[in-house]
Amino acid sequence: MEVGFVGLGNMGLPMARNLLRAGHRVRAWNRTPERVEALVADGAQRAASPAEAAGAGVVFTMLADDAATLAVLGGPDGLLAGLPKGGIHVAASTLGVPFSRRLAELHRERGQQYVAAPVFGRPAVAEQGGLRVVVAGPVEAVERVRPLFRALGPEVFVVGDAAYLAHAVKLAGNFVMTSMMEALCESLVLVEKTGVERERFAEVLNAIFRSPLVESYCGLLLERRFEQPAFRFRLGLKDIRLVLETADETTTPLPLADLIRQHALEGMARGMGELDFTALLRIVEAHAGVDGRTEAAQGEPPR
Amino acid sequence: MEVGFVGLGNMGLPMARNLLRAGHRVRAWNRTPERVEALVADGAQRAASPAEAAGAGVVFTMLADDAATLAVLGGPDGLLAGLPKGGIHVAASTLGVPFSRRLAELHRERGQQYVAAPVFGRPAVAEQGGLRVVVAGPVEAVERVRPLFRALGPEVFVVGDAAYLAHAVKLAGNFVMTSMMEALCESLVLVEKTGVERERFAEVLNAIFRSPLVESYCGLLLERRFEQPAFRFRLGLKDIRLVLETADETTTPLPLADLIRQHALEGMARGMGELDFTALLRIVEAHAGVDGRTEAAQGEPPR
Amino acid sequence: MEVGFVGLGNMGLPMARNLLRAGHRVRAWNRTPERVEALVADGAQRAASPAEAAGAGVVFTMLADDAATLAVLGGPDGLLAGLPKGGIHVAASTLGVPFSRRLAELHRERGQQYVAAPVFGRPAVAEQGGLRVVVAGPVEAVERVRPLFRALGPEVFVVGDAAYLAHAVKLAGNFVMTSMMEALCESLVLVEKTGVERERFAEVLNAIFRSPLVESYCGLLLERRFEQPAFRFRLGLKDIRLVLETADETTTPLPLADLIRQHALEGMARGMGELDFTALLRIVEAHAGVDGRTEAAQGEPPR
Amino acid sequence: MEVGFVGLGNMGLPMARNLLRAGHRVRAWNRTPERVEALVADGAQRAASPAEAAGAGVVFTMLADDAATLAVLGGPDGLLAGLPKGGIHVAASTLGVPFSRRLAELHRERGQQYVAAPVFGRPAVAEQGGLRVVVAGPVEAVERVRPLFRALGPEVFVVGDAAYLAHAVKLAGNFVMTSMMEALCESLVLVEKTGVERERFAEVLNAIFRSPLVESYCGLLLERRFEQPAFRFRLGLKDIRLVLETADETTTPLPLADLIRQHALEGMARGMGELDFTALLRIVEAHAGVDGRTEAAQGEPPR
Repeated sequence: MEVGFVGLGNMGLPMARNLLRAGHRVRAWNRTPERVEALVADGAQRAASPAEAAGAGVVFTMLADDAATLAVLGGPDGLLAGLPKGGIHVAASTLGVPFSRRLAELHRERGQQYVAAPVFGRPAVAEQGGLRVVVAGPVEAVERVRPLFRALGPEVFVVGDAAYLAHAVKLAGNFVMTSMMEALCESLVLVEKTGVERERFAEVLNAIFRSPLVESYCGLLLERRFEQPAFRFRLGLKDIRLVLETADETTTPLPLADLIRQHALEGMARGMGELDFTALLRIVEAHAGVDGRTEAAQGEPPR
Repeated sequence: MEVGFVGLGNMGLPMARNLLRAGHRVRAWNRTPERVEALVADGAQRAASPAEAAGAGVVFTMLADDAATLAVLGGPDGLLAGLPKGGIHVAASTLGVPFSRRLAELHRERGQQYVAAPVFGRPAVAEQGGLRVVVAGPVEAVERVRPLFRALGPEVFVVGDAAYLAHAVKLAGNFVMTSMMEALCESLVLVEKTGVERERFAEVLNAIFRSPLVESYCGLLLERRFEQPAFRFRLGLKDIRLVLETADETTTPLPLADLIRQHALEGMARGMGELDFTALLRIVEAHAGVDGRTEAAQGEPPR
Repeated sequence: MEVGFVGLGNMGLPMARNLLRAGHRVRAWNRTPERVEALVADGAQRAASPAEAAGAGVVFTMLADDAATLAVLGGPDGLLAGLPKGGIHVAASTLGVPFSRRLAELHRERGQQYVAAPVFGRPAVAEQGGLRVVVAGPVEAVERVRPLFRALGPEVFVVGDAAYLAHAVKLAGNFVMTSMMEALCESLVLVEKTGVERERFAEVLNAIFRSPLVESYCGLLLERRFEQPAFRFRLGLKDIRLVLETADETTTPLPLADLIRQHALEGMARGMGELDFTALLRIVEAHAGVDGRTEAAQGEPPR
Repeated sequence: MEVGFVGLGNMGLPMARNLLRAGHRVRAWNRTPERVEALVADGAQRAASPAEAAGAGVVFTMLADDAATLAVLGGPDGLLAGLPKGGIHVAASTLGVPFSRRLAELHRERGQQYVAAPVFGRPAVAEQGGLRVVVAGPVEAVERVRPLFRALGPEVFVVGDAAYLAHAVKLAGNFVMTSMMEALCESLVLVEKTGVERERFAEVLNAIFRSPLVESYCGLLLERRFEQPAFRFRLGLKDIRLVLETADETTTPLPLADLIRQHALEGMARGMGELDFTALLRIVEAHAGVDGRTEAAQGEPPR
């Protein structure tokens, strides 16, 4: 199948490469063109614009947020102009629900199709083709692009035929993951103040949850790799804002999300935006009067 | 080894039985003597009092809470009177940290040993010998009773040599589990209000966490078995109170625990104390104006 | 002075009337023209459009929210088209800070002046000329319209020369007032559950605070006039959203505002949008299992 | 009337002095006897023990907390031993509700009477005889001691005939006051981050509330007299704990009190226990990344 790919960041590049490896032809475009080189070496075709990428008839976007996605849509070089009637836009980014609805509208007006397909998994997981893809959109369009998802990961979850539903699921899933992070931070600080080594507690938690995800979270919190961001703090705040936007729109109180936003805002106010999101631990430590000295060797001392 | 066992409830009975099966001799006592019968059929000896059970030299307690444990300690028939000098009390219940400290003191005064060994796992897991045992106490005492733990579960976690540390770990672990429950409740309600079926979202969550525990929680929340309590609501509130007691004592703010306590208090105020703790979902639904009609067939309609 | 007045609601009508009484000439416009009649009887001139009202050179707007204000600005009949160069728009509504900034921009582009002048006080206070006016804008423009404020209330507070600052102060003031309401609801329920009559507690509070505002809040909460809205529940939620919008924009955690928003969202989800905002008490009562039967005579029973 | 007075701290001393001035005879006792001297100069009689003070037939206690009150009760020199049958203990301290119930029990067993009479007002107010006295207890006993209250302040509020109700009202009143403090802290930080001077905002708030109490709170928060404690931070935490104890006992969720406790615990964890409670502002500032430099001249820099 021929497919366009717009956005070759830490996630987009390995995803596009896996499409190539699975035998699909890929027309790639990126805002900073250097990122396209590596992919061309793997057999991709360079697209001169989002419009040209969209000319493939099916086009993925994998961009930072609503604004970055909006930026590739309009104008004569934009995705909307280049996608043929009946063509399909597959939005793999984490987008807000109202924006996802608006995207559906924009494509409908042009006789184009729109499928939301956000993914769970970090860059390393994307490289191994291990992503979980959450999909929603018109049934027929979803079936047409389904073979492409096989290149990205072992599991595809179709959650509805209105595209924004997939983004709602992605946001709610992120919220549960962040809640787990908050619970780990609070409990690690508590056991330490009671006199237990954090490592001992993490071992017990891993035996209870037996979850690779929880295990990786515990590892990151113990190692304090805050200065080597895999998922930036400011993006964590962005995700919480998006989930609260949907909560507000649907009149759903979400007190746990409010709590996390308070801590995330505090992190931003203390200049932690470019750290890894696990630096949330610093906030919880500061509230308990724990100064986290052990981290000093790895970078900036916590406030 | 000869061992006393005080408290044959849903957890204590299978634990005592597994000690028997592993070849240990067990002197069993329970407040309501009927519970002892079944165990006697399995080869246990009936003890006339906690004191007689403690006469074995090593005695487990597995009782509902601090008060129930306190009730078997004192008087001429009590555990303290019956346990010989150098004997070991193994407290397997979930106890509060200050009470656990007090227990250590009581035994020290009498030249007895005290080991805390709370367990993770539901009754069904206890029957299969699948508990996770968290242990703390004087090294030499822990080593003496360690063979007994092998009968209870595959993994033993020694977290310190002050006994109360094991209870701190147990409480903090429960707190993380309850936080996950709260996050699941909030996110299930959110996705439903956005238009996603709860089952679809649960599938995605299970693919993200790949945790048997999270999977069982999702299952319970979808099935709404609130009227068939495996872990009662009022005990969930008790555990949150104990973790907040420790947080207060160690000057640790624990906002997520406060949030859960608010919801648990509301459940109690609405008469939900004898339901399963997963009925927490009803509270979160009520706040979002979701009336949970689907539950009606299984029991009382939610308020 | 000649002045236009756009928006003759519960607040706007008495404000415009007081301008007339103070000897100013008023050109009045309202979306539903019936509201203008009463004012014409008092000597006002009827304006055919917001543009005609703005032709007076100074024009007040007193409208429900950002959207209603936006709706009178554009087009050939709009306020922007009718206000002469150097003319002054006085925005007396409670507006969001970003929208207030945008208003400043729109007027600057047209060589017009913009003064924010939100007011504190209910309709009855507006009628007595007792409003507190919070003002911000370019010094010279503020001085030109200051005589008009004397007709509205005894006190004018100039808080800065960027107009949006007055709206920020209005929103923050509303937030403090709503926080007091939340504190009153929680404490009234607490004392009742402890066995104290609410009226007795209210008397003590009034002796502590000696504040006419707190006294009026206590009165409303005791009388339960939820079905006779003086300030609608959905507007209370709107105000909390606006203050959280500013908090988010300035990276300020505001946990108390988050808490109130949770309760306000729950009220909306339970269909309370058109009640008085003091119905917040019902939410707090429901959480404590207090069913508020005493209210039954006045309308819908609480859930 | 002859009256004993136990506890001559910042509040007790002026209260006892006002009793003397009103013509009553006072037998005074204090743990550190130096405090009694001043009062003897004013005409008081020195009591050798709480028992001797209680011998007057009516005895006030005005002590720091439950524990300090408990400490003067027992033994041959204690208040319980010295108070004659039919004598009245007037507890003017802020006590916990369960402790107040226990006091009632202790006196009942001995045929003594017990009246709770906690007061609102700072030391300066106590000196001017301006306290508000909240009273509960058996009607006949309350009537006997009522003339004494006239010496303490202009207003007496009888809230029930079970003594602990007065302590419940005192705790709930303190909770509303502390909530106002939290709201002021959050809103002051918000307006400052938006660009408004805190002083300007405080002027507006004072015009809205017209409350001497709110005015004094705003003054303290602007002046940052954290190093000159009028009401210590650790006592503020104590009061919040007592109100939450009652909330827990009556199954009443109190989310605003939980929020304040989180901030108060953080203050304790950061070593602020001996500062004035208004230092709560430092916590709210720290969360917003505001460093409060202006305070430096007055003492320790904030963290």
